[in-house]
Amino acid sequence: MSSDIEIAQQAKLAPIEQIAEKLGIPQDTIELYGKYKAKIALSENEKSSLGKLILVTSINPTPAGEGKTTVSIGLADGLNQLHKNAVLALREPSLGPVMGLKGGATGGGHSQVLPMEDINLHFTGDIHAITTTNNALSALIDNHIHQGNELGIDPQQVIWKRSLDLNDRELRHTVVGLGNKAQGVPREEGFDITVASEIMAVLCLASDLMDLKARLAKIVIGYTYQNEPVTVRDLQVEGALALLLKDAIKPNLVQTLEQTPAFIHGGPFANIAHGCNSVTATKTALRLGDYAVTEAGFGADLGAEKFLDLKVPNLGKAPDVVVMVATVRALKMHGGLAIDQLANENLAALEKGFANLKKHIKNMQNYGMPVVVAINEFAADRESEFALLQELCRKEGVTAVRSSAWENGGVGAQELASTVVDVIAEKKADYQRLYLNRLPLEDKIKKIAQTIYGARDVSFEKKAKKQLKDFKELGWDQLPICIAKTQYSLSDDANLLGAPRDFDLTVREIMPKMGAGFLVVLTGNVLTMPGLPKRPAALDMDVDAAGNASGLF
Amino acid sequence: MSSDIEIAQQAKLAPIEQIAEKLGIPQDTIELYGKYKAKIALSENEKSSLGKLILVTSINPTPAGEGKTTVSIGLADGLNQLHKNAVLALREPSLGPVMGLKGGATGGGHSQVLPMEDINLHFTGDIHAITTTNNALSALIDNHIHQGNELGIDPQQVIWKRSLDLNDRELRHTVVGLGNKAQGVPREEGFDITVASEIMAVLCLASDLMDLKARLAKIVIGYTYQNEPVTVRDLQVEGALALLLKDAIKPNLVQTLEQTPAFIHGGPFANIAHGCNSVTATKTALRLGDYAVTEAGFGADLGAEKFLDLKVPNLGKAPDVVVMVATVRALKMHGGLAIDQLANENLAALEKGFANLKKHIKNMQNYGMPVVVAINEFAADRESEFALLQELCRKEGVTAVRSSAWENGGVGAQELASTVVDVIAEKKADYQRLYLNRLPLEDKIKKIAQTIYGARDVSFEKKAKKQLKDFKELGWDQLPICIAKTQYSLSDDANLLGAPRDFDLTVREIMPKMGAGFLVVLTGNVLTMPGLPKRPAALDMDVDAAGNASGLF
Repeated sequence: MSSDIEIAQQAKLAPIEQIAEKLGIPQDTIELYGKYKAKIALSENEKSSLGKLILVTSINPTPAGEGKTTVSIGLADGLNQLHKNAVLALREPSLGPVMGLKGGATGGGHSQVLPMEDINLHFTGDIHAITTTNNALSALIDNHIHQGNELGIDPQQVIWKRSLDLNDRELRHTVVGLGNKAQGVPREEGFDITVASEIMAVLCLASDLMDLKARLAKIVIGYTYQNEPVTVRDLQVEGALALLLKDAIKPNLVQTLEQTPAFIHGGPFANIAHGCNSVTATKTALRLGDYAVTEAGFGADLGAEKFLDLKVPNLGKAPDVVVMVATVRALKMHGGLAIDQLANENLAALEKGFANLKKHIKNMQNYGMPVVVAINEFAADRESEFALLQELCRKEGVTAVRSSAWENGGVGAQELASTVVDVIAEKKADYQRLYLNRLPLEDKIKKIAQTIYGARDVSFEKKAKKQLKDFKELGWDQLPICIAKTQYSLSDDANLLGAPRDFDLTVREIMPKMGAGFLVVLTGNVLTMPGLPKRPAALDMDVDAAGNASGLF
Repeated sequence: MSSDIEIAQQAKLAPIEQIAEKLGIPQDTIELYGKYKAKIALSENEKSSLGKLILVTSINPTPAGEGKTTVSIGLADGLNQLHKNAVLALREPSLGPVMGLKGGATGGGHSQVLPMEDINLHFTGDIHAITTTNNALSALIDNHIHQGNELGIDPQQVIWKRSLDLNDRELRHTVVGLGNKAQGVPREEGFDITVASEIMAVLCLASDLMDLKARLAKIVIGYTYQNEPVTVRDLQVEGALALLLKDAIKPNLVQTLEQTPAFIHGGPFANIAHGCNSVTATKTALRLGDYAVTEAGFGADLGAEKFLDLKVPNLGKAPDVVVMVATVRALKMHGGLAIDQLANENLAALEKGFANLKKHIKNMQNYGMPVVVAINEFAADRESEFALLQELCRKEGVTAVRSSAWENGGVGAQELASTVVDVIAEKKADYQRLYLNRLPLEDKIKKIAQTIYGARDVSFEKKAKKQLKDFKELGWDQLPICIAKTQYSLSDDANLLGAPRDFDLTVREIMPKMGAGFLVVLTGNVLTMPGLPKRPAALDMDVDAAGNASGLF
C-alpha cells in the first residue's frame, strides 16, 4: 500500500493557472508561488450570489484525528464528480504537529490537497509572516519599556506573548531581559504556538487589509501601572504590523488529487483558538463555487461551536448543512474500549460510545443545522459495526453515509456528496446563535458549557473571578467567547469520554483578544504551547538530492 | 526629491520570466513567487566557463552605511549600459535593521533592486525557513533532554541558541524550561538574530542540497556530561532540517530599476557572521553573466576578509577585482570630525581619515587583488574634497572614480564600470590566502588581527584560553576563522576611527561552527542580537488598502 506522500508524489497536477481559469479567476489577480500554488488578490468582483456552505466537523477525536480533512476533500471531489462545482476552503497546517506526532493537515490516502510537502512545510509563508508580526510587536513593546516607557507599561502586566510555529514546551515559561541594564527589562514571558496567536485570529477574521489594520490597532498588549489597557494603537505600530501581513491576508489556491480547487488559508487550532480557516478564503470559495466545503477543527464542541458563534457573524453567511465525521474506532473508544483494542469488533462499546456522536448531532440541530453523518471507514471496521452505527443515526432522524474517500478518493464519497446535495435541497437551515453578546459574561460561558458540553456548572478560579469583574468595568463583557479546552472530551478533562454529565467546567483565566473581537477562556489544563513526543516525526523525515521529501504524513 | 520607495513604486518592472529568458535560464527551472520574484532550481547545465567576479567592499562605515549596495547595483547597471552582460549577486535583507534603524538593503535612489518592499519584508521566505530550522533544532534538543536524554546532553552545555529575524535585546539572556517537571528542563538560553545563525552560514556556503545536509549533520549543538561534542547527526535530525531548507537553498532572481538581473540570496551579517551572499547565487551569477557583481558586508576588514578567506575556498573562484566604496563624509569622520559636522568642507579631516581607506586598499592588495576605489557621492560633498581624495588614491597607485549611481542610476556609474572593465583586462588578480588552515589557532587569529586590523597583539580572555586548548584536543584547530567584531573600527573598539595602531584585540569566546566549517571568534563587546533604537523605523511604516507600502527605506 502506498503512503500518503507516495500517492501525492505520483499525482498529476494541473498548473495552478488552469485551476484558477476554470474558476473564472481573472489572470491579473493571481500571484504564482511555484507552479502549483498561488495567492489570489482579494476582490469583490466575482459573482455576488454565494454558493451553498457545507461545514464539516466531527465527534471528539482520538489523538490521530478522525479524518475530517480527508472526508472534506473526498466530499468536494465527490461533488465535482457529480458536476456540482465544489470548492474547498481549509486551514493551513502548523509545523508543530507536522514535526511532532499528528502529522500534516492535507488529508490522506486518495483524498489529499497538493503539493502536500509544500503545504505542510512553509507553504506560501503565511504562518511565518504571522509569527514575525507577533514577535515584532513583542520586540516593539519591550523596546518601548526599555527606552523610557513613555506609556507607563507595567512589565509585570504585559499580556502579549511571543510565539513560534513549533511544538516547544521549553518556551512555555521563561524569564527574559536578563543580563544587565542594557539588555532589556527582566520579566516573565511565555511563548505560544503561532496558531494560538491573536495575529492568527485577526488574519482569519478580517474582511480585508484595512479591517485587518483596524483590528491590529485594537489589540490589548497589557496594562499600565495604573491598570489601564495599552493597545497597539497606543504604540503606533498597527501600520507596520499590517504591512508585514499584506501578502499573508490573500487566500492561497491549490488543488486536490482530483484537481478540485482548494483555498487553504489561516490555521488557528480549535482547542486553543477559534479553529476556522480565514473569512477571506471561505468567502472566495463561496463566490466562486456552487458548493463551498469547509471544516472547523477538532470536535463539534470546539471548531463547529466557534464557526457558528464566532466566524459566521464575520462571514455573514451560515452553513447550509453540517457534515459530522465519525469513525467506528473513535466511538468504540468513547464506549470505553482501550486504545489498543479498537481494531476488534465490539458492538456494545460502539453503541455506548454513540452517546458522543448523538450529543454533537443534537448540538448542531440546536443551531438550526441539518446534519449528515459521514462514517469515515477504516480497514479494521466491520460491516456489523457500520450497520449498527447507521441504524443508531437513523433512530435520531439523521442519515449516516459511509465514506471510503481515503481509499477511493471522490468515488468513495459520491454517496455522501449526493446525500449532502439532497439534504441541502430538502431541509432549509435555520441558523440561530447560541447566545447573545449582550448576556453577562458569566452566563455566556455557562451557556456554552451547559448546552454544548453538557456541564452541570462552571467554576471560576480566583484569577478568572477577578477578570469577570475587571472586564465588565472595562466594557469588554459584551464580546463573544472562545473557549480553550481539550479536544478529546466534551468536558475539560481529556479522560471523560462519551457524553459526560455531572462535571463542572473549570475556568482558569480569561484573555482579552480585542483585535479578534472575543475573549479566550482557558479551561482545565489546556496548553497554548504543545510539546514534542518521545519520538518526534522529524526523526523520520528526509529529502533527496532532487528535493523530494520523505517521512511526511 | 522622491524617496527610495517612491522611486521603486514608479518603476516599470519586466515580468521576471523575461529577465530569466534574457539570461538563458531554462523555463522549467524557474519557480515564480508573484510576477517579479523567482527561485531558480540549481543546475550545472549552464555554460561551464565562469564570468569575471567583481567584489564590492568598503571602508569602515558610519551607522547609516556608505552605500555599498547602491554602488554595486549602479555598477552592474553601468556595466550593462556598456553591454557587458553583468549579473548581481547580493544578500537578502534582515527584518531586524528594516524595522529598526538602518533600513532595508535594496540599494537607494536610482540604484535599487525591486520589488523593494517584498525583498525587504518576507521576500521568498528564505530567512523564515532558516529561523524555523534553527528553532526546530532547539526544540528537538530540549525535547531529547526532557524525554530521557539518551545522549547524556548536559543542559548547561547546550551551545545551540534559538534565533529570530528581529532586533530584540530582550531575548539576549533568558532562562527557559521554567514551571515544573512537565515544562522542560530549566537552563540558560539566549536568542541570536537569524543572520548570525549557523544555519544561515551553512545555507550560504553549501554547494547543493546534499552538501547542505552533510553540513547540517556536522553541527555541534553542545556537549555531554562527559564533555564530548554532540552533533545534529547524533540527534538524527539532519534529514528533517535539510527538508525544511529544500526551497530556501535555491537562489532568488529579481531585477534592478534598469532591469539588470539580480540574484539575492542569503544574508549573514559581516560583523557577527561571515557576511557574504550564498555560494549558489554567486556561482549562478558567474555562470550566467560575463561579469558578476557581488558585495560583502560592512568594511573590508570584515566582509571582504571573510569573502577571501572563507567564501572563496567554497566558491572555487576568487575575485578579479575589488571595488572599495568610500565616502567623503565617512573619511572625514575617520579624520576626527564629529558626526554633525560631516556636511562641512574639511580637507584636513579628509586627508587624516584617508588612513582608513589606505589601510583597506593595502589589505586587499595583500590578497593579490587589483583595487578600484568608488567614491559614492553625497549632496554635501565638495569638488575640492573629491579632488583631494582622488589625488590621495593616485599616490597609492589606485584609481578612484566618482559614482553618482544613487542620483543617476547606471549612467552615474558608467565611468566606474569602464574603469573596472579596464582594470580587469589590464591587471591580473593573483589571489593568495591570508593564512593556511594548518597554522595553530592562535596564530591564525593573530594573523588576521595584525595584518588586516593593524593590531599590536591579541589577548585571550580566560574562557577563550581554555577553548584554544580544548579545540586543539578536539582537532578543531585546523578550521579557518570568522571574527565577530564591531564594523565601525578596524579594531574591536567602535570608537577607534581612522587606522588605529597600538591596540590589542580582545578575544572573549570561540564558537565551533562545524557545519559552516569555521570557528567564530567573539571580540570586544559585539552583540549577536541587536536592539531597536529609541524610535524604530516601524513607527513610520504603513500600508494602504491596495497593499502599497510606505515608510520603508
